[in-house]
Formats: sequence, structure tokens, C-alpha cells
Amino acid sequence: MSFINKLLLASQKNHSLLCIGLDPNPDSMPDIDILTFNKAIIDATCDLVCAYKPNLAFYEAIGSKGFTILKETIRYIPPEIPVIGDAKRGDIGNTATAYAKALFSILGFDAATVNPYLGFDSIQPFIEYKDKGIFILCRTSNKGSVDFQNLSCTGSLPLYEIVAYKAREWNVHGNIGLVVGATYPDELKKIRATCPEMCLLIPGIGTQGGALDLAVSNGVNAQGEKAIINVSRKVLYASQEEDFAQAARSSAIEIRDQINSCLSSIHNT
Amino acid sequence: MSFINKLLLASQKNHSLLCIGLDPNPDSMPDIDILTFNKAIIDATCDLVCAYKPNLAFYEAIGSKGFTILKETIRYIPPEIPVIGDAKRGDIGNTATAYAKALFSILGFDAATVNPYLGFDSIQPFIEYKDKGIFILCRTSNKGSVDFQNLSCTGSLPLYEIVAYKAREWNVHGNIGLVVGATYPDELKKIRATCPEMCLLIPGIGTQGGALDLAVSNGVNAQGEKAIINVSRKVLYASQEEDFAQAARSSAIEIRDQINSCLSSIHNT
Repeated sequence: MSFINKLLLASQKNHSLLCIGLDPNPDSMPDIDILTFNKAIIDATCDLVCAYKPNLAFYEAIGSKGFTILKETIRYIPPEIPVIGDAKRGDIGNTATAYAKALFSILGFDAATVNPYLGFDSIQPFIEYKDKGIFILCRTSNKGSVDFQNLSCTGSLPLYEIVAYKAREWNVHGNIGLVVGATYPDELKKIRATCPEMCLLIPGIGTQGGALDLAVSNGVNAQGEKAIINVSRKVLYASQEEDFAQAARSSAIEIRDQINSCLSSIHNT
Repeated sequence: MSFINKLLLASQKNHSLLCIGLDPNPDSMPDIDILTFNKAIIDATCDLVCAYKPNLAFYEAIGSKGFTILKETIRYIPPEIPVIGDAKRGDIGNTATAYAKALFSILGFDAATVNPYLGFDSIQPFIEYKDKGIFILCRTSNKGSVDFQNLSCTGSLPLYEIVAYKAREWNVHGNIGLVVGATYPDELKKIRATCPEMCLLIPGIGTQGGALDLAVSNGVNAQGEKAIINVSRKVLYASQEEDFAQAARSSAIEIRDQINSCLSSIHNT
């Protein structure tokens, strides 16, 4: 099944646009091993999410065990929930082919994030996996995103909008999406208008401070779908005590319900 | 010792600006295991190079053994030769911190490549490792690099030049360099003029077809230094037979000598 169909089914089944970022940081976690932590979070939240999104940095920072923990984490996620590999890779053609293989064939992700700076041939090897989802970084949630992404380019469009237009042009298999931070709601609105049917992966809610209502109203398509609202730290580290999994569940329920109430108010207006 | 000092010493000792990209691709290699292959290449070339540059994609594509092979490869390189981790990472602050830790503390690279698309706060955690080298992608060697890097931006400068100016501004610890492909020699010349003292990592020679003489003459600083000319496939896969290491050595000698003869002709004009 394609990533997008798997996503829509999981989203419908769990009544959820919430994605949980599985980014284990030993400094913020209770004192247990990382795989046990991840499994407890998954057990506590897998009926509440449309997807999970492990960021590879946190596994690479663990050292040699990281790969195994990541692979076991992916395997542990119920097969009906899609898993997005947040890797933000970008390299020249033959190297991009190796990265796509690592993420899709070796690790088995349903989707991955990629960086557009190197242009089409760095993304093409990913797109060729027609059943996988490819999320191109467009307008990221961090402060530094203005340094280059907001530069006014040819035709006086900011760079991130040119990335959105290019992504639309490259989307011949219908498997491309965009990463747009909730911390920039106006930009999110513009990108949704430019790409009305693309799947948008929206980080920046929670610890990063993006407003949830605007992320939802500006992020969803006309059917109230195809927006993946990612939250990591606010769910994972809701408690650092023994009750961390229960606290994560409570936090995930709260955010999912807030998202759904935003959706209802869109439908009612 | 800082990366830049280690680089200059290795370069002087081996009379070489050649860097070999340790990018093992099982499809192109003789039929031996990857660590044995890497060790044979290192044994055959470590008196001919100023640095080695493993690209992480090729290790990730191997699966769980990849991390160990990469780590063993780095350990096997003689300690006086600097090792550049070609990872092209780029992510938001706390995630970038995890990537920097993975590359510098866990894997022990002397330098790493990073992607500028996410801006300053994605690069800052790397720069804080003052003794490490940070190579920011500026003008990459691939065809797709024109898609965004050549867009005319604010002040009608192309994006890659704005990246170069920003890199110069951010270079408070003197540990930032730039990646500039040999396939675009005019751009290389412009960037060298903009950043006269920065270290430039120059891929694109060999299989990618960049002209070596222009890479050298446009890439070095006024002292004929601080240009790292990277070659991967043309050295690694000089032969796919049992004589692969000897063939790699011959190829490396040929390229190193060509570089040095280009340097002599600059000095003599």
C-alpha cells in the first residue's frame, strides 16, 4: 500500500492528524533504555496517531547501538501506522541512491524527509520509490530558516515558495509532500494554496511554540486532511518520572482532541 | 590539534592536495568485504593524500554493519591524516546538536560537511567544535545544483554566493570551509575571491568530469594551499580485479602529480 493511502487510513481509524516524533534524548528521558522507552511510548499512543516520525540524529548520537534501536523501534510500530524517517538527506545522484536505499530498503520507512539544496537529481532517487512518501523541506520551523529560505529570488518569490513550485512540478508520481513549520502560519497558508493536494508535514507545535489552531486551519486541504501535525518533546517528555508513558498518552490525547476541535470549527464556519 | 593545522601538515608532508573519498559501493568493488577493501585502499594511498572523506550514505546503505565498518575505517586511517565526514547534515538546533555529537564525538571525524538550507542555528552546534572543520555546501558539483543554488536572490547575487558571504560572517572561530564543485570552475574562482582564506573542499574531478587544472588554479589560496581536491570513484575503482589497491595507488599518484604540476605552473606564471 502506498504511503499516502496508509496515512489516510491510519488518520481515519484513529481520528487523528497527530504524528509523534520519536526523538529519544537521554538527557530528557527517564532513566531507562531507549528501546524500552520507545516501545512504552508506542504502546501508550498508537491508537492516537496518524504516523510516527523518528529523527535519525537521535539514533546516530547513541553510537553503534543506535541503528539496531531504530530498526527495532520501526518494527515495533503497528504495521497499519506509517513511519516517516526524518533524515533530511540531500546528496548527489549516486549518493542519494544510497541514502534512499538505506531509508526505504534497509530501515523500511514508509516516507522520508529530504533537503532540496542540491536540486532535482538529489531527490529523484527517492521519488522513484513510488509507494513511499517524500517530504521536501520547504519552510522549516527554526529561526535560522529566514537566513536563506526567505531570500527573495527570481520573480521576487522567496526561496521556499520556489521550492514549493518545483516540488509541484516534480510530483509526477503523486508521492511528494512538503515540510512547513507551524511557527510560520502565514507561509503555511500560502504553501497550502500553492499545493492544494500535497501532503504537508508540519513540525513546530509544542516546545517550539507554533499555534496549533493556525497549523490546522492553514495546513489541511479542503477535505480537512493531508496535514501531519508533528509533536515530539511535548509528548515524549510530558513526565520524566515512572508515569512517563501515561503522561505521554494524556498529552497526545489532549493535542489530538485540540486538533479535532480546530477541524470541527473549520467545518462549522 | 585543529583540523586546519592537521590538514596543512598532512598536505605538506605528502606534497598533496588530494583527498580520497572512501565511498565503498559493492556494485563497483572487487568481491571482498568492505572493511578489507577500505584498509587496502588506505594502505595503498596514505602517503599520497592530504585527507580522506568517507560519505556516510555508502555505510548507511550497508545496514547494521555499516556503522562498525565506518568506525573501523576511521580508526585505521593514520592519525596524522585528517578525516572528513561527508554527511551533509542539516536540522534544527537540538537535532543539529545530536548530529554534531554523532559525527565528532561518536565517530571522531576531524571535519564534516553540512547543508545550509536551514540557516545559522542548524550550523552553530557544529561550529562550536572549534577544533573541527565545518564545510558548508555552497555550489555543489551535480547538475541539479542550478535548481536553487543559482537562483538570483536579494541584491541579484545567486544563492550560493549569499551562502559564501554568510559563511564568512559566521566564521568567528576560523573553522568554516565551503564545498564547491570542480564542475563549475568560474563559480569556484568567484568564491575563492570572496573567501580568500577559507578552506575549500572541491569534489567533481574524475568521474564527474570537472577539469583538474581549473580546480587547482581557481581553488587554492595565494599560498597554493587550502584547496582539498576530492576524488572517489576514479581512484577506488581504478580496477575491479585483484590488483585494485595497486591500481588505486597508481591512479592517486597520477592525480596528485597532475595537481602538483598545475601548482608549479601557477607559481611559474
